[in-house]
Amino acid sequence: MGKITPRSTDYSEWYLDVIREADMADYAPVRGCIVVKPYGWTLYENMRDLLDRRFKDTGHSNAAFPLFIPMSFLQKEAHHVEGFSPELAVVTVGGGEQLEEPLVVRPTSETIIGYMYAQWIKSYRDLPVLINQWNSVVRWEKRTKPFLRTMEFYWQEGHTAHANHAESMEEVMRMLEVYHEHAMVDCALPTIKGRKSKSERFAGADNTFSIEGMMGDKKALQSATSHDLGQNFAKAFEMKFLDRDNTEKFCWTTSWGLSWRLTGAVIMAHGDDTGLRLPPKIAPIQVMIVPIYKKPEEKVGVMAVADDVFKTLKAAGIRVKLDDREETPGFKFYDCEMRGIPVRVEIGPRDIQNNSVLLARRDIPGKPGKTIVSRDGLADAIKTLMDAIQANLLAQAEAFQKANIREVNSYDELKAAVEDGWALAPVIDDPAVDAKIKEETKATNRNFPLEQDGIERKCIITGQPTRERAIFARAY
Amino acid sequence: MGKITPRSTDYSEWYLDVIREADMADYAPVRGCIVVKPYGWTLYENMRDLLDRRFKDTGHSNAAFPLFIPMSFLQKEAHHVEGFSPELAVVTVGGGEQLEEPLVVRPTSETIIGYMYAQWIKSYRDLPVLINQWNSVVRWEKRTKPFLRTMEFYWQEGHTAHANHAESMEEVMRMLEVYHEHAMVDCALPTIKGRKSKSERFAGADNTFSIEGMMGDKKALQSATSHDLGQNFAKAFEMKFLDRDNTEKFCWTTSWGLSWRLTGAVIMAHGDDTGLRLPPKIAPIQVMIVPIYKKPEEKVGVMAVADDVFKTLKAAGIRVKLDDREETPGFKFYDCEMRGIPVRVEIGPRDIQNNSVLLARRDIPGKPGKTIVSRDGLADAIKTLMDAIQANLLAQAEAFQKANIREVNSYDELKAAVEDGWALAPVIDDPAVDAKIKEETKATNRNFPLEQDGIERKCIITGQPTRERAIFARAY
Repeated sequence: MGKITPRSTDYSEWYLDVIREADMADYAPVRGCIVVKPYGWTLYENMRDLLDRRFKDTGHSNAAFPLFIPMSFLQKEAHHVEGFSPELAVVTVGGGEQLEEPLVVRPTSETIIGYMYAQWIKSYRDLPVLINQWNSVVRWEKRTKPFLRTMEFYWQEGHTAHANHAESMEEVMRMLEVYHEHAMVDCALPTIKGRKSKSERFAGADNTFSIEGMMGDKKALQSATSHDLGQNFAKAFEMKFLDRDNTEKFCWTTSWGLSWRLTGAVIMAHGDDTGLRLPPKIAPIQVMIVPIYKKPEEKVGVMAVADDVFKTLKAAGIRVKLDDREETPGFKFYDCEMRGIPVRVEIGPRDIQNNSVLLARRDIPGKPGKTIVSRDGLADAIKTLMDAIQANLLAQAEAFQKANIREVNSYDELKAAVEDGWALAPVIDDPAVDAKIKEETKATNRNFPLEQDGIERKCIITGQPTRERAIFARAY
Repeated sequence: MGKITPRSTDYSEWYLDVIREADMADYAPVRGCIVVKPYGWTLYENMRDLLDRRFKDTGHSNAAFPLFIPMSFLQKEAHHVEGFSPELAVVTVGGGEQLEEPLVVRPTSETIIGYMYAQWIKSYRDLPVLINQWNSVVRWEKRTKPFLRTMEFYWQEGHTAHANHAESMEEVMRMLEVYHEHAMVDCALPTIKGRKSKSERFAGADNTFSIEGMMGDKKALQSATSHDLGQNFAKAFEMKFLDRDNTEKFCWTTSWGLSWRLTGAVIMAHGDDTGLRLPPKIAPIQVMIVPIYKKPEEKVGVMAVADDVFKTLKAAGIRVKLDDREETPGFKFYDCEMRGIPVRVEIGPRDIQNNSVLLARRDIPGKPGKTIVSRDGLADAIKTLMDAIQANLLAQAEAFQKANIREVNSYDELKAAVEDGWALAPVIDDPAVDAKIKEETKATNRNFPLEQDGIERKCIITGQPTRERAIFARAY
């Protein structure tokens, strides 16, 4: 049982300590890679299943495309190959022989999926194609930070093809909204939807949209992106269809992805100096039962009730566990708090007499809030409490985000703001503006939020008039 | 809308035709790889989710280990490296630079998982470790056959560590039983549980157990394996623990895997000359509603009822789809049959008058069996029908398997039997025996079934006494 560094001392150390102590992940013996342990993976699985449900509810199906992509495919879209070339892992030997054409381990799958769609799509009747894939991709990274920056990372990549730009744009915005809802409703993470600036676009996209979340150290984390690929990949891969008007046209395509970075966001946005705090909707264990007894003769009675409560809660569909290890209650409490389990149920000899249990909630900052409740109707009481915890975690994160975004109207104000929060600044969409601010403040243009007030202001760098403001922040 | 080759003409062509016409999968532009399309992938997902439930019910958790394994790891277990070396895909370039140590794209993960377990396991309190991973692995294959033999294939690999051999063997047999139940109950596939002969063991295992299924052409398909790894990988990776008696011991480990080959088995064991026949428990679409109308004025009424039936069945938790395409009923029937949809609901003008629908079931050989039922209580009637279809597909496969296994007591009898079925033959467990039979008959030793009658017979090759018989069959 180790200690964790307080966030105020070293936020980065705190993050690594929590991941280790909560048994989420470990470093792999392969440069840049991590092993996600059962507790961390179950959290990821729960998030994945909820997001997958949202994909299916919006008409998407999953499929599987190959891990390997011929090198020549990447070269077909000029910006794409330029963007990804420096990050590739390349297979040059297969079955003991040197390969004629090297195979790239996919960094993303637009090219191979574009190639396949070109075979499948003949007519407007074949459109739209709405496919998603859950997989891992590889991008050669110099530094590693579990979930946030790893050479191999798990994500999903959606790839869709449409008959015209209006439809593909509708899809781009639909999926941005799906991501925003998933982050907010499932993960209790408020995020800002917006358009990426020209300098921050995906390599090969006409436009990229993102959701950006604020972490506990006030840095930004790009939590998902949705790309309008125009006809760029359709042209590179000859993805054409015969339209209703009997003419052949190129498709309009989109792609959109969300990775296990969002798992990192859940850790960073909700965690405190005692460890994780997990939203009940995605928590691997929603309720931990801790039996409490001092004398051996108390144990039998307490364990019988604990077991009964366990069965009741499990039957009610709650992800519940009974901590029956031979450890002290203090050790078990510490463990529950470190692992961010939303609700702890304590059962002792007095509770048995009173037909009650003690509920401890994890979402209150500092020491957990405790209440004593009756065992009658316990499952419903816990479900109500979990709803309250889910809402409270979101409310806390929203308040934190709101308190730390400052509206600025000059470069000096921006410089001050990004020292300890986000700045919302009027700027024109110009890579030179982004570059100057990044160079001088380490803050990057996160996005131009979709919600704008439409007021004309002056760009804080060029002085040119603009009706858009962008979020600037130091980012992961 | 293409045609499929009859099974009796060319079984292999039939298999490929069905996969293409049912829109299951396509060839990828990468040698040896396939793309699994939404219909095929949803079938795989349904199988995966049911098997995953069984893993969790037996106490296992999922986790994620890296795609890449340092070459030196494979070399630590002598038989393992010997078995896998010829099949490896090797990354030699990363981030634009030649790697000092090449990285192998995992062909299986015993080595890297063994390395991690050695870090995690300190004491008997840490045991057992019961982890599974769903992933894809790569083995350089010369020939490709969708689902059955592909360079990259999807599977799950379970890896467990235990304090003694009794416990690890219990796990090996538990997972063999889980596979057997999954095949039988979820996929309606009867399989034979047994011990692999010495010559067919996994590279690095002390013992391998398998389930073997009979395909429609009477060839065998190894459908899953469960390995007793003894202390081989524990010793190679220094996986030690401090036992209760305060001495340091090596762990005992197991691994077990089931791949998308089982999806191929579902296609081959149940399919007929009209296409797929899918068991309801795993079918992507359990019920297809086909509205039938001739005159345009009939359409509105029929579609309203079809839509109502759709909502009723969906609300009852049935995976239902309404085929509202502008195609003829005949085209839609063909499509339902090709794709193996268990139940088709036909709704026409007369049905509306009678408050009835027509149900067509796909499991009866030849033309589908049709019955007219009331719309009242339709969801329950369909659920009952689906149970009957699930049971009937299993019964058909069991009868087929039973009819095509012959007990033989001489080599000549075996030779005749394996021309058109399986042979159950008394043999000793000797690689030379397996090799001779394989060389001369193309039939391989599938396994020594767990169920044996214990009668002493003479080995059909050596004449030595043996109390075990093995299944011999030509195999995929």
